[in-house]
Amino acid sequence: MLSKSLIAKFAEIAGKNVWTEQEDLMCYAYDASFGEMCVPEIVVKPETTEQVCSIVKLCCEESIPLVTRGAGTNLSGGTLPVNGGCVLLTTGLNKILEINTEDMYAVVQSGVVTSDLALAVSAKGLLYPPDPGSMKMSTIGGNVAENAGGLRALKYGVTGDYVMGTKFFDMEGNAVISGGKTVKMVTGFNLSGLMVSSEGLLGVMTEHTLKLVPQPQSSRSMLVIYDDLMKASVTVSEIIGARITPATLELMDRFTIKTVEEAAKIGLPTDADGLLLIEVDGHPAAVEDEYAKVKSICEKQGGKVHVAETPEERDRLWEARRKALSSLARLKPTLILEDATVPRSRIPEMMQCIKDITSKYSLTVGTFGHAGDGNLHPTILTDKRNTEEMLRVEKAIDEIFASALKLEGTISGEHGIGSAKAKYLESEVGAGTIRFMKKLKNGLDPKNLLNPHKMGL
Amino acid sequence: MLSKSLIAKFAEIAGKNVWTEQEDLMCYAYDASFGEMCVPEIVVKPETTEQVCSIVKLCCEESIPLVTRGAGTNLSGGTLPVNGGCVLLTTGLNKILEINTEDMYAVVQSGVVTSDLALAVSAKGLLYPPDPGSMKMSTIGGNVAENAGGLRALKYGVTGDYVMGTKFFDMEGNAVISGGKTVKMVTGFNLSGLMVSSEGLLGVMTEHTLKLVPQPQSSRSMLVIYDDLMKASVTVSEIIGARITPATLELMDRFTIKTVEEAAKIGLPTDADGLLLIEVDGHPAAVEDEYAKVKSICEKQGGKVHVAETPEERDRLWEARRKALSSLARLKPTLILEDATVPRSRIPEMMQCIKDITSKYSLTVGTFGHAGDGNLHPTILTDKRNTEEMLRVEKAIDEIFASALKLEGTISGEHGIGSAKAKYLESEVGAGTIRFMKKLKNGLDPKNLLNPHKMGL
Ligand SMILES: Cc1cc2nc3c(=O)[nH]c(=O)nc-3n(C[C@H](O)[C@H](O)[C@H](O)COP(=O)(O)OP(=O)(O)OC[C@H]3O[C@@H](n4cnc5c(N)ncnc54)[C@H](O)[C@@H]3O)c2cc1C
Ligand SMILES: Cc1cc2nc3c(=O)[nH]c(=O)nc-3n(C[C@H](O)[C@H](O)[C@H](O)COP(=O)(O)OP(=O)(O)OC[C@H]3O[C@@H](n4cnc5c(N)ncnc54)[C@H](O)[C@@H]3O)c2cc1C
Repeated sequence: MLSKSLIAKFAEIAGKNVWTEQEDLMCYAYDASFGEMCVPEIVVKPETTEQVCSIVKLCCEESIPLVTRGAGTNLSGGTLPVNGGCVLLTTGLNKILEINTEDMYAVVQSGVVTSDLALAVSAKGLLYPPDPGSMKMSTIGGNVAENAGGLRALKYGVTGDYVMGTKFFDMEGNAVISGGKTVKMVTGFNLSGLMVSSEGLLGVMTEHTLKLVPQPQSSRSMLVIYDDLMKASVTVSEIIGARITPATLELMDRFTIKTVEEAAKIGLPTDADGLLLIEVDGHPAAVEDEYAKVKSICEKQGGKVHVAETPEERDRLWEARRKALSSLARLKPTLILEDATVPRSRIPEMMQCIKDITSKYSLTVGTFGHAGDGNLHPTILTDKRNTEEMLRVEKAIDEIFASALKLEGTISGEHGIGSAKAKYLESEVGAGTIRFMKKLKNGLDPKNLLNPHKMGL
Repeated sequence: MLSKSLIAKFAEIAGKNVWTEQEDLMCYAYDASFGEMCVPEIVVKPETTEQVCSIVKLCCEESIPLVTRGAGTNLSGGTLPVNGGCVLLTTGLNKILEINTEDMYAVVQSGVVTSDLALAVSAKGLLYPPDPGSMKMSTIGGNVAENAGGLRALKYGVTGDYVMGTKFFDMEGNAVISGGKTVKMVTGFNLSGLMVSSEGLLGVMTEHTLKLVPQPQSSRSMLVIYDDLMKASVTVSEIIGARITPATLELMDRFTIKTVEEAAKIGLPTDADGLLLIEVDGHPAAVEDEYAKVKSICEKQGGKVHVAETPEERDRLWEARRKALSSLARLKPTLILEDATVPRSRIPEMMQCIKDITSKYSLTVGTFGHAGDGNLHPTILTDKRNTEEMLRVEKAIDEIFASALKLEGTISGEHGIGSAKAKYLESEVGAGTIRFMKKLKNGLDPKNLLNPHKMGL
């Protein structure tokens, strides 16, 4: 509990945007991950960067742990205030400061909601490509801090690929600027790169300069239905192997298809064993070429190809994909979403591993994901009060991660480490890397106040 | 001077690949920049990563400053051993370990020469896009450490955009691994991103996993000649403004054209005031479309467009561009190459500033550069023994930098800070950023042994 005089200091900075009542604090004790509730001592919502600076300085002087929170949609426990302390909400910093159509960049505050930016940019005839499934809620700051991917990552890359510059405050309240409005810039360390996937451990970000691209002139979306999931995953590596880079190449297994259809009534074939959602885009002639090639690869594997004929039909397809996680979440009390990622040609092998492991431990699992990125989300549905099943779940996760690493992959493609995956980190990166990360963190935040204990730090 | 027993320790690690004689040391006392000679005390060329580790540990224990050196082609004094100590040559680590055509990546040791990698990749039908003018000499490690750009950066991005993973040793000799073979990966801090443009200050890199892309199916190269340089620079921003992204969009002024032609007899029109070298590539239909649009924009500005009809003609055009720096360098004893970069639409303004400033101070200047990136290289030809002229040079540089910053640009687009630009860094990034960089460096290298005093640290 913070003292009254301390609370007053926060109120001096942020006025009424300060909360300390238990029922308010509870709203920030969890995030979209499967983590234990952790109640903060105070929640504050600055509306200017000056207020951010003052809050950071106050926390530093008073040694109060500080957790920055955007929309709290992360899936790795990244915003759980495990040491109590202060939760700083960035949602008050929600201004789009500039959209420059000539030089194709946007300058936004960190609390801007991803889809608000996407819409504003699209209204000016440009595209901000990163589109995580959570984009209607997630913030740009959260996207940068997690290096969020999305449905277009295969062709267009992830959030980090669009960060030209970032402004942030370090734990002393120093204003740090890195990068800016030019497409090339090498003045000093690549700090804006360092802030990508920094998960709130190295500073509180307030502003980003983001690269925009021209909207594609043309596109084609298709739904491809398979009676055997393995053939869908072989299709994925064959498309990549044919040097075609669709904008989107998403996969869903039988269980996910059924669940989405039951929840959303989109018209998905509930008897299919697997499906792919594919979109190619670009110059009209290139799109027609790629479409023909993709179609023939899919059909060779026995896939039935349906092309979206209208924008509405296309939107319905994407809606189906975006609903995957939330539909699965309705089925059981506890949802554990993994994020194993492998080199793309190894998708069929990884898919087989997930099937084998989850059936070995008799678990209920829906698998979907950004297959074109090599990124699958096996989603285990369980109940954390069932301790026996939870033991099996844990063993299955250990084996899934071990398989991903054996296939030269990673334990996290896009959801980050947070508290959820801290214990697995060393198995991937080794002790030397952990030591380096500790020295880095310690040099920049010697009291370990910024999002403490995340990534095991 | 190092003691005999210390030298023996180096020899124990690296055998005969250790040099301490003055005439050998002199070869590593300079780099391609305009800096004072600085003689190291010992030069060592490890041939295995184990040797690198041992050398780093020895330098750490004995507090010997350690400067990593690839080909020494950097233009910012990045490899000058300003505190003496040890120069570690990476040229013995020159193996291409893997070229994976299915998942499109290469794994290389840091001392691999850029063009060796480019050729090996191209032989397998793929493209490694970053192509700095120095690629026949520069190393991949040096490219990563400087985040080198190149002629294709406009469309394809810079070196950092191709780094999927990096292995390095920190100053304690810890092995650090970051990133890897998947296209997405968020396990821990983005250390491979941090190593991009780290200029040898944060660790000795030994291995990189680099993204490859399919070769473009088609391309068209053109040479466009102007009787007024300003019209060439307006063309640049008009092409970008038309949402066309050529692979290459390079500019040369009258002085550079004349000089290159005299040196290389390529057939450039020596009476032109400026020229653009443009290449569009991609799907054949897209290339034809873009070519037609680019041609009409150029002609609207009075440019005379010549299309390269054969691969040989195309190579000759690129040869002209690659010869720019070396041809200018022959004219006077001292060459000072600047690297100011602005948002692309501001190229005409920046070009005007450079013209005004250099004529105000009566300097001999050739300007060329990656105009499509907003990146110009005004190259001042002088003689550093002429102290009166050097004063004017310094004033001109100050004004060029101030202009770039006023146009929301940067003092360095691709050549880095090193020792040459350290004193200008704070004017761009501010005191808070410098303080943050110091804390970062100090946390990772408390004795300040790794390339000390570069970036002003
Ligand atoms: C339905 C659903 C679908 C999803 N789909 C995807 C997907 O397709 N791809 C994907 O990658 N992820 C996805 N996610 C995960 C999540 O949405 C992303 O990680 C997103 O980037 C988090 O944004 P946020 O604003 O909610 O951040 P939060 O959850 O609030 O915070 C995430 C992390 O960032 C830090 N942080 C936030 N803002 C700042 C700041 N201004 N400065 C410093 N640190 C900060 C926090 O401390 C925390 O560590 C999905 C989640 C859900 C619930
Ligand atoms: C004719 C000419 C043309 C050029 N054209 C371009 C161009 O088009 N674009 C561009 O961006 N640059 C260009 N440059 C600049 C230069 O070639 C690049 O900066 C290049 O990346 C340097 O590579 P290098 O191997 O020579 O590195 P070096 O000069 O040896 O080193 C550069 C820096 O990297 C560090 N370093 C090197 N290897 C390692 C390692 N393994 N681990 C850690 N640190 C390391 C060094 O300590 C130093 O700070 C040009 C230079 C010349 C002379």
